[in-house]
Amino acid sequence: MPEMRRDPVNGRWVIIAPDRADRPHDFHHRPAEGNAAPPCPFCPGNETETPPEIIALRPAGSPADGPDWRARLVPNRYPALRLEGEAAENGGGLRRRMPAAGSHEVLIETPNHEEGLAEMSAGHIADMLRICRNRCSALLDDPRIRHVMLFKNHGARAGASLSHSHSQIVALPVVPKHVLEELTGAVRHQRETGRCLYCRMIEEEERLGERVVQQRERFAALAAFAPRKPYETWIIPRRHEARFETATDDELHELGGLLKSLLGRMNDLLHRPPFNLVLHSAPREDGHRESFHWHLELLPEFTWIAGFEWGAGVYISHVSPERAAAQLRGGGQS
Amino acid sequence: MPEMRRDPVNGRWVIIAPDRADRPHDFHHRPAEGNAAPPCPFCPGNETETPPEIIALRPAGSPADGPDWRARLVPNRYPALRLEGEAAENGGGLRRRMPAAGSHEVLIETPNHEEGLAEMSAGHIADMLRICRNRCSALLDDPRIRHVMLFKNHGARAGASLSHSHSQIVALPVVPKHVLEELTGAVRHQRETGRCLYCRMIEEEERLGERVVQQRERFAALAAFAPRKPYETWIIPRRHEARFETATDDELHELGGLLKSLLGRMNDLLHRPPFNLVLHSAPREDGHRESFHWHLELLPEFTWIAGFEWGAGVYISHVSPERAAAQLRGGGQS
Repeated sequence: MPEMRRDPVNGRWVIIAPDRADRPHDFHHRPAEGNAAPPCPFCPGNETETPPEIIALRPAGSPADGPDWRARLVPNRYPALRLEGEAAENGGGLRRRMPAAGSHEVLIETPNHEEGLAEMSAGHIADMLRICRNRCSALLDDPRIRHVMLFKNHGARAGASLSHSHSQIVALPVVPKHVLEELTGAVRHQRETGRCLYCRMIEEEERLGERVVQQRERFAALAAFAPRKPYETWIIPRRHEARFETATDDELHELGGLLKSLLGRMNDLLHRPPFNLVLHSAPREDGHRESFHWHLELLPEFTWIAGFEWGAGVYISHVSPERAAAQLRGGGQS
Repeated sequence: MPEMRRDPVNGRWVIIAPDRADRPHDFHHRPAEGNAAPPCPFCPGNETETPPEIIALRPAGSPADGPDWRARLVPNRYPALRLEGEAAENGGGLRRRMPAAGSHEVLIETPNHEEGLAEMSAGHIADMLRICRNRCSALLDDPRIRHVMLFKNHGARAGASLSHSHSQIVALPVVPKHVLEELTGAVRHQRETGRCLYCRMIEEEERLGERVVQQRERFAALAAFAPRKPYETWIIPRRHEARFETATDDELHELGGLLKSLLGRMNDLLHRPPFNLVLHSAPREDGHRESFHWHLELLPEFTWIAGFEWGAGVYISHVSPERAAAQLRGGGQS
């Protein structure tokens, strides 16, 4: 059983999951003479290589775990968390720990091994966002779960172990550090100004214009004012809602189109970079409805985390957000 | 002039330094047929490729910036911060920013292009630690500087742009996020228990034994209880001091030997991994003398930061700290 441990100094939870050392990697695989690469566990025909599916997009009547699907949500075969037993802390003092009681699921986004998110149709991306929304909602019904994180790793340098396009849903028994920090900032802003920080950010950034990447009816995409990575972009719904689970089908349809367009532009501009996409939504506890605001963060990966970043938590970016936004919206200066 | 910006949600400072896009990289350099790789700016004979040296280990009478040296401290030619003007905030609201007024220096640790830290003598490592201690102390004399961070990137995957062994000293006009978090935790522990968190950690970990990597007269090396990376190791002086600048020559001599031995063991065990080494010391402000405790953090790099880590701030490790410690102290189980 994987275990969560809490750093005795800064309170950060981590996961110790020795079983994950065994998981397969298909990047940089160099088969020996005469040996084929192992089959991709996410390709059609290899459904038995994953645990049984939780939900899938299939034609009516198509049997579960058969090959005729457009997307499949399955448990991760090498989960970092497992929903077994109680999420009760033990240890205490300088050595706080608890079973990593949660879940770790994989959304196989396409049967096509070569297809990236930017190549899929906007409607297909929206379908997958709906699967994720519904699954996040179901996972939060379990009282042991306090937070659900949706994310995508694209490319080996972005931490993907398999190249076949997929996203992941992790349900956690704790509110993770970065979400807590955002909540803290948002709650403070709400208390001090009476306003949602993210609503205000959209309003001010659209007035200034220089960091605006895309403006849609229901969403705005903005170059982060203080990015961790060059071209870091935040996608924020205009409708104030703390939780992703409340997103409407119309919103997810527009979001599918926005993601396709943004990733396509990024691929053209930055030569198909590895990237991470993460979704931040309020944790299970009530009380954040007014102050938090769900959103996506897109981080292309072409720099390496170095000692300064590990040590300081300060990131150095060699492209200004204003230049990044101009390039990403196609406004020249590239 | 590079600029610091503050994330409007979580308060993290970042640096925007467009000039750094131009810096040279010698990893993965593949010279075209007939073209030689560019000369290493850190090798003897190429001293004009760096700004004039600040201090160097040289025989008496050897001229500055000549070739006869054992170590050189020079300004970074592509600095992320510059000590120009005032470190005054402007902007405000959701867009706090200030000039990145500070300094960014490089310690070239050896004239030998091929030599890594583990190959240098313990005495030479101690000599360099003394240069760093004295330089940190001098930098903190400038009232614009609030914190000095010493770190080393070894290998491209650990963020090094040049392979010739070097460390870096960054002086900052703000206390960076990770140091603030450690200070907060240490101050809280001191207030609640009347004891230094790090002193107590050494005491308890040595009693338990399972995460002890090395025990010396003046230092203990411990596998981090809640590591960000497999084999993350903390090196903590036994003498309670908030600031690295107060380290004695005897302490630095022992630390040189400990680092050599630990890196040698890590190289054998993990096949010469890329690594980051960071030093955490109290910021310029007084008031942390009782609660903070300077230390080093060693992070081998063979996993990639992925969406979950970016999104959650939760790290997943596939090697338990207890197993890592047993392997690093050579106690079997490897």
